[in-house]
Amino acid sequence: MKLTILGCYSATPSAFANPTSQVLDIKNHLFLIDCGEGTQVQLRRQRVKFARIKHIFISHLHGDHFFGLPGLISTFVLLGREAPLHVYGPKGIKDGITLLLKLGKSWTNFPLVFHELSSAVPECIYEDDKVEVHTVPLDHRVYTNGFLFREKPGERKLKIEEVLKYDIDKCYYRNIKNGKDIQLATGEVIPNEKLTADPPSPKSYAFCSDTAYKPELVPWIEGVDMLYHESTFLEQHTDLAAKTKHSTAKQAAMIAHESGAGTLLLGHYSSRYNDLEAFRKEAQTVFPRVELAEDGKTFDF
Amino acid sequence: MKLTILGCYSATPSAFANPTSQVLDIKNHLFLIDCGEGTQVQLRRQRVKFARIKHIFISHLHGDHFFGLPGLISTFVLLGREAPLHVYGPKGIKDGITLLLKLGKSWTNFPLVFHELSSAVPECIYEDDKVEVHTVPLDHRVYTNGFLFREKPGERKLKIEEVLKYDIDKCYYRNIKNGKDIQLATGEVIPNEKLTADPPSPKSYAFCSDTAYKPELVPWIEGVDMLYHESTFLEQHTDLAAKTKHSTAKQAAMIAHESGAGTLLLGHYSSRYNDLEAFRKEAQTVFPRVELAEDGKTFDF
Repeated sequence: MKLTILGCYSATPSAFANPTSQVLDIKNHLFLIDCGEGTQVQLRRQRVKFARIKHIFISHLHGDHFFGLPGLISTFVLLGREAPLHVYGPKGIKDGITLLLKLGKSWTNFPLVFHELSSAVPECIYEDDKVEVHTVPLDHRVYTNGFLFREKPGERKLKIEEVLKYDIDKCYYRNIKNGKDIQLATGEVIPNEKLTADPPSPKSYAFCSDTAYKPELVPWIEGVDMLYHESTFLEQHTDLAAKTKHSTAKQAAMIAHESGAGTLLLGHYSSRYNDLEAFRKEAQTVFPRVELAEDGKTFDF
Repeated sequence: MKLTILGCYSATPSAFANPTSQVLDIKNHLFLIDCGEGTQVQLRRQRVKFARIKHIFISHLHGDHFFGLPGLISTFVLLGREAPLHVYGPKGIKDGITLLLKLGKSWTNFPLVFHELSSAVPECIYEDDKVEVHTVPLDHRVYTNGFLFREKPGERKLKIEEVLKYDIDKCYYRNIKNGKDIQLATGEVIPNEKLTADPPSPKSYAFCSDTAYKPELVPWIEGVDMLYHESTFLEQHTDLAAKTKHSTAKQAAMIAHESGAGTLLLGHYSSRYNDLEAFRKEAQTVFPRVELAEDGKTFDF
């Protein structure tokens, strides 16, 4: 998986920092996560091919997480897009976006499919042969979901020298990769584990923004390889965090620790702080492996 | 008047150019004209004080002219604005903006007043003691207005040495500035023209975007000091201009010539052209005084 941060700040865009948006590349399949104002410009700056975005996940309907969506969709129209676009987001998103497009008498020349979410418990909202996406219900001022992207286990890897040793016909390779044992013409059965090795372990990414500290979500993201968890505030502002239903860097680190995450990625910083390293330091008092989201940064895992 | 170009391109924002938005400063009173996506970032870059914007004029409801408005209003909310904000735009703008704010359960803590426009003929939509704003109905694919900003004539200028010569009490100065004659204690009447000079001639600015070539608008903007007229295309693409109801640089120049404008300002360029000077050259075949709108440029007149 390759994650690109398009915007990492909370609330209002500033002259040089953008509100929340990320692109997740899973085996050349692009998922856009949140779409604050200016996201289409950030996509251009990062040279992301617009046509490769087929699925957009919106966590909640605060402006800094979706006000870039009508403009992005309008641009898809102008570029002559024909491929369907799927948008997953809270109930109401369809009315909001379609009204704005209708006001300009512009409608899409491609299928625009809204998947409106309202469940209070995790659900699988997307699945193909490589990936599953599950919601991670969060605790914010409005209905909000995080998203868990989980690769499916790949095919088992052929130990080609073993396979050749038994002179097995190529048409059985798929069965072997799928874990089947093989019976030779002699009647001898070769167990699958002799012919294959385990596939690389499937990766997972959890995006959790915006939310108050919510330990209930830990079982839903257990063992995730990369956890993005918002850290709007530092501990010196726990009162503001509680009031606005956001988290501190330390609280984010507690979630990372409890869920056994591989790496914690912080972001959604309040613009009141100048030094992002303070977020890393605070989180590392609880959890060692901390990265800082910054516009334009990429993470491979 | 001082005009700052925040965005000058048509349709989609690119990595380095923004869709339509301008700020007009008339005697320290700021008017925002159109508000494409990213306008709030452009305002920050140009160091425009957000609190000084009290009136926003939206020409039409295509995304590249108003998708920055919900984000700008949300930012006003976060900044704790208390002063009223007036938005002038086509019928429907209120529903669109308020639905988006409602989805995020955010509402303004300041009076947000929409003035919805639907007249097919020019009307005065704003007036204070210094300025009048009139609509300039245009010809586009959706209901669209240009806007004419016209300073009111200022007070006459006191010829202070003359006034002192007659030993006139200061409490009469306002009357004199307003054009009144003065009767001295001796009974002698001093005619106003002896005591005052003409005020500087009031300036005017017309913003005409987006529109097909529409010579009918000429009488409405006659003698305007600065005319912004869209030039999405060059003459080589008159077919596209006609089809999409936009203008060419030459057509913009014809409007400038026929209305006796002081200066023609071109903008709303299609991103298919790399060399903006081609727009100036084409316009100058018809009208000599041509300026090119570019993001961040300012014009004093």
